[in-house]
Amino acid sequence: MRGFAVRSTVEDAWSWIDTTVQSRTALDCESVELLEAAGRVLTETVVSQFSVPAFSRSMMDGYAVRSEDTYGASPASPLPLRIIGSSFPGRPAAETVRGGTAVRIMTGAPVPNGADAVLPVEFTTTENELVQISGEVSPGKNIGIPGEDIRKNESVLNAGRWLRPQDVGLLSAIGRKTVTVRRRPRIRILVSGNEILPPGNLPTDFRIPDSNGPMLKALAERDGACVTLSDIIPDDPAQLLAELQCGVDVVLVSGGSSVGQEDHIPVLLRTHGELAIHGIAMRPSSPAGMGRIGRSLVFLLPGNPVSCLCAYDFFAGRAIRMMGGRKPEWTYHRVSAPLKRKLVSTVGRVDYARVRFENQEVEPIAISGASVLSSTTRADGFVVIPADSEGYAAGTSVDVYCYE
Amino acid sequence: MRGFAVRSTVEDAWSWIDTTVQSRTALDCESVELLEAAGRVLTETVVSQFSVPAFSRSMMDGYAVRSEDTYGASPASPLPLRIIGSSFPGRPAAETVRGGTAVRIMTGAPVPNGADAVLPVEFTTTENELVQISGEVSPGKNIGIPGEDIRKNESVLNAGRWLRPQDVGLLSAIGRKTVTVRRRPRIRILVSGNEILPPGNLPTDFRIPDSNGPMLKALAERDGACVTLSDIIPDDPAQLLAELQCGVDVVLVSGGSSVGQEDHIPVLLRTHGELAIHGIAMRPSSPAGMGRIGRSLVFLLPGNPVSCLCAYDFFAGRAIRMMGGRKPEWTYHRVSAPLKRKLVSTVGRVDYARVRFENQEVEPIAISGASVLSSTTRADGFVVIPADSEGYAAGTSVDVYCYE
Repeated sequence: MRGFAVRSTVEDAWSWIDTTVQSRTALDCESVELLEAAGRVLTETVVSQFSVPAFSRSMMDGYAVRSEDTYGASPASPLPLRIIGSSFPGRPAAETVRGGTAVRIMTGAPVPNGADAVLPVEFTTTENELVQISGEVSPGKNIGIPGEDIRKNESVLNAGRWLRPQDVGLLSAIGRKTVTVRRRPRIRILVSGNEILPPGNLPTDFRIPDSNGPMLKALAERDGACVTLSDIIPDDPAQLLAELQCGVDVVLVSGGSSVGQEDHIPVLLRTHGELAIHGIAMRPSSPAGMGRIGRSLVFLLPGNPVSCLCAYDFFAGRAIRMMGGRKPEWTYHRVSAPLKRKLVSTVGRVDYARVRFENQEVEPIAISGASVLSSTTRADGFVVIPADSEGYAAGTSVDVYCYE
Repeated sequence: MRGFAVRSTVEDAWSWIDTTVQSRTALDCESVELLEAAGRVLTETVVSQFSVPAFSRSMMDGYAVRSEDTYGASPASPLPLRIIGSSFPGRPAAETVRGGTAVRIMTGAPVPNGADAVLPVEFTTTENELVQISGEVSPGKNIGIPGEDIRKNESVLNAGRWLRPQDVGLLSAIGRKTVTVRRRPRIRILVSGNEILPPGNLPTDFRIPDSNGPMLKALAERDGACVTLSDIIPDDPAQLLAELQCGVDVVLVSGGSSVGQEDHIPVLLRTHGELAIHGIAMRPSSPAGMGRIGRSLVFLLPGNPVSCLCAYDFFAGRAIRMMGGRKPEWTYHRVSAPLKRKLVSTVGRVDYARVRFENQEVEPIAISGASVLSSTTRADGFVVIPADSEGYAAGTSVDVYCYE
């Protein structure tokens, strides 16, 4: 049993994560149905095989006309045109618009031959086969030209794109049925500890149900991962090693990360892989660590639930998001507001302080022990105090990352 | 065929949505497994049946001691204590700590009888059965007291809570296996139009694959809904009515919302339900509308894809989020930055302008037709210009809602 000799900085840890994820072969791709593609990360550059629209189409409900036939028309002196047909979406008019005639047309319908503009319905009144027009249109007015939205052979979305709802709409418009996206990172959560009961059990005597496994599963799924949760593993090196070598992309180890007598994981990593970082200059989460075994990145997350959440947010989540092709940054909304009370830290370590909003002010949560999970459920978010700061005076405007 | 006589304001539409959703019976509840509960909205107030921790536990790896035995200990003059046992998490020590003795203890382990503090391992050196201590601890130091995190019979999470990952952890810690949450709103997307092909088809002649259905499905799922997508429905009133009466919470109608000859839906709503709003003073999406039929809210979304996206974001999404117990506001991140070019609007209507970031400046996307879906895939987000504004001069700082 001994303390940490030297603690790494948060920046050291980020740098190791970034380098390690980038030097690793990217996750393979998979094909998904378009209707399931939102929120996935594209791995192909999509080139359209079609122009959208493929034909001249009306942008308004109204009349397809020859623009020169409208010149001089006004509410005071309307001009008559003879209605010779109708163009509906998907059912174009067969007629050709010649001098003095017009074709009734709907939004999205093909513009008939001969017409070079669409006069909106608001500028017309209809009497049997005649339409009286009370406005002018210039050539091309209210007509969408072929390729206006997408040109044939144009790249519409690049590899690496996080697919938004409208991207999915666009892909459908150019006839895609499936797209190629990055596989989700596969995450295994190992929970060890003889005192831990599986989730769903009631606390008994000195044994407590696992809170970190369910929390980590939700966090990693939020970050786009495909997650499995191990049974509770006894403090047994052989069983722990087998789990560490299960071949997933990232192993999250809850508990057993410190330097205590039964903390086998750091030793296993050092022996069978790499223990790159162990002990970080931050509070909470100072016993956090990271390394790898085979192709799997391994994050050692402290058993204390606040430390576990913090270490996930700072380190494991970053790696998982990057592997999945997402931005490394937190997804939390950031809000600036003044501190209601001072927030004290120590130079040389990063602090993760839970806070809540009260009347537009930021109030530090008094109960701040790393074991007090309810401090993160009572909090609206957290403030990060950098290593070179002693904290902030009351009234200082701070950035709050809001839990979601 | 005629234009809209009077357009409602955006505020009128929001007010109708808010009143209608609030006066509607709330969606029923369902029980979900805890491991699937993140992101759901709680409908019960959760009271803990247990104290957490249930026993005095160590917050550090170190030695459980009587604090008075440590007084005077320093690196210069360490004091010896005799190690009489070990306390592990889940396996308490049987021994009682008396004067001159200590029990080796791990983080999370029960504090043995007789001890009133834990001395961290960093302040100790061990020689066989003796530990030399080089620091003092006051009573209670490094001990988590029962109920410190959660007190028995305390309300830990209130009804209406959007469950975060740490909430799921907390619920697990107090022995919950399932929780009661609000059912997801059930949404039916109706796509009508003789020219529309189902998603997954290639564009042919004057027929185009549906882009709005896939986009709306992704949007509504993002907002927590359970979504089904109809087949493409011909412009036939009987079939449209049957779909409108399918009994879901919200029907989204893409296309067929305007006042053209084949726009049956507004007539059906007026005849068989209520057409509350039709025509809104905004651009795009001015033909949007809303009403209800039976218990279902119905949103008429213009067929033009940008209008459809905008009308979803302004109206349908708000109703869906509220029904599901979420906040009505957009989930888009908001960023303020100066305009690179002026952004022109017209007093009397709200404008939804697609923009992109260029060198920290906000550049309006030039191609702004409501039919140009690629304007929303090229954009980084949008700026809302309120009805009382003629727009903004270059250099004005504007709020951009970032697409995600």
